[in-house]
Amino acid sequence: MKFEAVYHRTSDNYCYPLNEEDLIINIKTGHDIERVFIYYGDPFENGILGGNWRWNGVEEELIYKKNLTHHIWWTTTVKPKFKRCKYYFKLVAKNTSYYYFEDGFYTEGEMNHQGKSLVYFTFPWMNSIDINKTPDWVNDTVWYQIFPERFNNGDKKNDPKNVKPWGYHTVSNEEFYGGDLQGIIDRLDYLADLGINGIYLTPIFEANTSHKYDTKDYMKIDPHFGDEKVFKNLVDAAHEKGIRIMLDGVFNHCGNQFAPWLDVLEKGPGSKYFNWFMINKWPFNKEDHNTKNGSFYSFAFTSRMPKLNTNNPEVIKYLLDVVEYWVKNFNIDGLRLDVANEVSHRFCKDLRRLTKELKPDFYILGEIWHDAITWLQGDEFDGVMNYPLATSIADFWVYPEKTNYDFECAINHNFTMYMQQTNDVLFNLLDSHDTNRLIDKVNDIHIFYQQLALMFTMPGSPCIYYGTELAIEGSYDPDCRRCMPWEDIDEGLYKDRIDIIKALIHLRKTNKAFKSRHFHFIEDKNNQRVIHYIKTDEDQNQVEIILNCSEDSIVVQRKGNELFSLLQAETILQPKGVFIQQI
Amino acid sequence: MKFEAVYHRTSDNYCYPLNEEDLIINIKTGHDIERVFIYYGDPFENGILGGNWRWNGVEEELIYKKNLTHHIWWTTTVKPKFKRCKYYFKLVAKNTSYYYFEDGFYTEGEMNHQGKSLVYFTFPWMNSIDINKTPDWVNDTVWYQIFPERFNNGDKKNDPKNVKPWGYHTVSNEEFYGGDLQGIIDRLDYLADLGINGIYLTPIFEANTSHKYDTKDYMKIDPHFGDEKVFKNLVDAAHEKGIRIMLDGVFNHCGNQFAPWLDVLEKGPGSKYFNWFMINKWPFNKEDHNTKNGSFYSFAFTSRMPKLNTNNPEVIKYLLDVVEYWVKNFNIDGLRLDVANEVSHRFCKDLRRLTKELKPDFYILGEIWHDAITWLQGDEFDGVMNYPLATSIADFWVYPEKTNYDFECAINHNFTMYMQQTNDVLFNLLDSHDTNRLIDKVNDIHIFYQQLALMFTMPGSPCIYYGTELAIEGSYDPDCRRCMPWEDIDEGLYKDRIDIIKALIHLRKTNKAFKSRHFHFIEDKNNQRVIHYIKTDEDQNQVEIILNCSEDSIVVQRKGNELFSLLQAETILQPKGVFIQQI
Repeated sequence: MKFEAVYHRTSDNYCYPLNEEDLIINIKTGHDIERVFIYYGDPFENGILGGNWRWNGVEEELIYKKNLTHHIWWTTTVKPKFKRCKYYFKLVAKNTSYYYFEDGFYTEGEMNHQGKSLVYFTFPWMNSIDINKTPDWVNDTVWYQIFPERFNNGDKKNDPKNVKPWGYHTVSNEEFYGGDLQGIIDRLDYLADLGINGIYLTPIFEANTSHKYDTKDYMKIDPHFGDEKVFKNLVDAAHEKGIRIMLDGVFNHCGNQFAPWLDVLEKGPGSKYFNWFMINKWPFNKEDHNTKNGSFYSFAFTSRMPKLNTNNPEVIKYLLDVVEYWVKNFNIDGLRLDVANEVSHRFCKDLRRLTKELKPDFYILGEIWHDAITWLQGDEFDGVMNYPLATSIADFWVYPEKTNYDFECAINHNFTMYMQQTNDVLFNLLDSHDTNRLIDKVNDIHIFYQQLALMFTMPGSPCIYYGTELAIEGSYDPDCRRCMPWEDIDEGLYKDRIDIIKALIHLRKTNKAFKSRHFHFIEDKNNQRVIHYIKTDEDQNQVEIILNCSEDSIVVQRKGNELFSLLQAETILQPKGVFIQQI
Repeated sequence: MKFEAVYHRTSDNYCYPLNEEDLIINIKTGHDIERVFIYYGDPFENGILGGNWRWNGVEEELIYKKNLTHHIWWTTTVKPKFKRCKYYFKLVAKNTSYYYFEDGFYTEGEMNHQGKSLVYFTFPWMNSIDINKTPDWVNDTVWYQIFPERFNNGDKKNDPKNVKPWGYHTVSNEEFYGGDLQGIIDRLDYLADLGINGIYLTPIFEANTSHKYDTKDYMKIDPHFGDEKVFKNLVDAAHEKGIRIMLDGVFNHCGNQFAPWLDVLEKGPGSKYFNWFMINKWPFNKEDHNTKNGSFYSFAFTSRMPKLNTNNPEVIKYLLDVVEYWVKNFNIDGLRLDVANEVSHRFCKDLRRLTKELKPDFYILGEIWHDAITWLQGDEFDGVMNYPLATSIADFWVYPEKTNYDFECAINHNFTMYMQQTNDVLFNLLDSHDTNRLIDKVNDIHIFYQQLALMFTMPGSPCIYYGTELAIEGSYDPDCRRCMPWEDIDEGLYKDRIDIIKALIHLRKTNKAFKSRHFHFIEDKNNQRVIHYIKTDEDQNQVEIILNCSEDSIVVQRKGNELFSLLQAETILQPKGVFIQQI
């Protein structure tokens, strides 16, 4: 038996309550394991700890499993009557079986050895207040990310000085094109027609740059974007159309025009805000372009973005007051935290308590590009920006030698990292203001749609970056922040592309299997560049998705209603084609 | 390469700050791995995320490792200049090497493939407020656990009715012998002479039973134990002798005489305390002896101990007020939480915030018998009762076929479960009021001392259960709660035994290597029942410990000052002997 492959711990996403009734237990083993059994029950069935008695659980076989590259992921759901659960496993490989406890593996004889205290796995109590509850609506949402300066100019009166004429071409971060909140209001019909029902706005508080990630005033809408009144109008008008609004909270750092920072620059350690930042040397050269000398900590090494000290209770309180203001007065629905991984956990925990009290179904999204399990235990964020999924999808085309089985394992890896309630609200995206645009990555309009079809059928909450419905061009930041080509859109030049995205959005919103967390792959060994999987909803309705990533046409079996297809006719699915049907 | 054996995640005790400067990174691999390298550095060295650039870390080889039964545990400490760290690994096995990232293993060619986004491990920021800080004094402490009803009767005036005459013999939980707080004060000289410098008191608040785990009034000392004044005297007198006091907080449940419970029994859902408990059916039969019908939740199935609902903010506030009262007015040094694993995490987090504000070096100890990583992240408990260590020690004698290498792996398992700062303050014990007594487990006075010698040389904070210095007898609860045989002690009948324990306590307190977290085993393949290991302190002073658990005498090399020995003469260590020397 490959003992070294086995992993289980009564923590993270290996043992957790899905809700007040269901306890999910996952165990990872090597591919040599053929069957897994769990023995579970109430810890106090026979007596209390330390006493002279033997505990025995009820046997149950684990039947659900997923393939990972080097492991099998086994899962079961138990319903502990008294909210507590004690358990151990039996692992069966060819000709051999072992019992698995917290302190290792035992044969039946060893396990029953006189004098041995067994160290059982224990989930001691499913306390309701600790259960990771994520907002239901997020899984039903299709997001649209807007970079306001470049989306639409609705009010010429608030344009910055030196505003440049609107136009679809390469841009720099130093240029301003006059996009604003009124511009978004003016295009809400367009967005509603597209079908999206959530808008993620990159920052809108007062700041000097075009991207506004260098906040000057957390309590004020940037004057070039509008004011509190127009923002309120935007939220209300969006809500009327069933569209939710998520703001971008830049709390890791401020801009160098933030009043407390200016006070520190003036007064040094005498400023009452000195400990709001992370200053290591005073005085320092205020003209330094970067912070590589460590005089103070900043975002990356940008001296224009000093880090806020979220270890300081005063700063925590200040930022919580900011959040309370925008939630209470403007009824926003969610907050995306910029550079969320560098902010203190203490702040994140307090932020959750506050926002969930103000609005129980508030959505907290962290910008974390790496494994974020530490933030996703139920007392900090609901979800994170799912860049790892985008990478797993991209890799299938980056490495043409990858097989559909490799792809299956990669997708399974992504959806076995967190709790299931987290998977429902992971913020799936293929591009953003921080990356080159999807079409720039894949450089092929058919692969572009294949990857979008994948994203729209994955668990989580998909997001389209503004303009991706048009497949607009754009390399890395700042080129990915071009102006929306409204003239061409209004003339209908993009109609075909928009219709494809509309179809995907419509299916995502109306077909429960699309957004479900349940999926399994069909491995086709004859054609290892065909991705083939089934999504299943809670009512056992199923959708079949086939992507032909091979160089040859393939035959697909028609089983039910065709829902979506590209490069497909009759039973033939061409290379780079997509076929989705109800089955 | 055994890919399936490799485990690393940027969470739990795999990547964490030891303090504000040092970041510890651990990785588990199979025994096939010969060398491990880490490539690490600042995440923003070359640019920000999503951009078109490549990040490269600095290479460093991991040189510290520990054997686990099926794995090697590799460890390193890095000092990120800017508090943040990005990294990946290279694993080298015979004739092959792979790079290891969050999303899997790559050859050098695959890693550098055009278009691949590498998914690095990232510890994004070492926020000071989130660092797991444990109180320094706990590692310097030798604890003595007192069960007050059976330790010493110092004040006959507060004896319960029907008090039984003091005597060393089998007891029941229904009997009272009159032990009290004055009795402890009267024996503080004895305890100080023994050398212990921490007392853990099982519950002392008003309750009906002899063990007091069924609290009636959280704000009152049990009248048979004394009153607030005598308790204050005890804390002050102990502090004068350098002895710290830890109370037992029974917050998972109360006793059935607790006033709010009585109010609920009287008024039902009309009681303002109805939601302080976990009542599923009303009315229920108040005469039921157990709660197996689920009418309300209780400790185990004992209807006399209804569970407190620590999901209810009112209950959390009530219990925090209780704690604040005892810390503020009586200056207690620590709190052991009874059935700590069933109380809500929310309560545990709030308890930590409160107590560390009141007294920054307050010690919070959870009664958790299983893997407790969830509670030991730095925002709940400092330590837990280390029953798993006791089991690992016991197992070497339970299974006579176990080798010294098995033992090494088991001990390494125990000390690779949590963060190092947690290991320093784990509450090590070999017996307690919840188990049969150590002598009853091992049934041999020499093995008894071998196990104690082990405990006194392990990382953590050792605890002696009252009477264990005498090797007093006692089977499972209630027999492990006998009265202390003071007459015999005072007559000197236990002098030899006490002297052995005094020697161990003295060494533990004065020799830094004894309490250090650094140890390594010397594997003697010629005699696999000899346990042999070296402890090393921060100044590189070393202590060598040899236990002969074989059936033959062995020769030990004398290298320096002998510190402690049993069944040893010249260079001969007899079976069941212990030899400890400075080297």
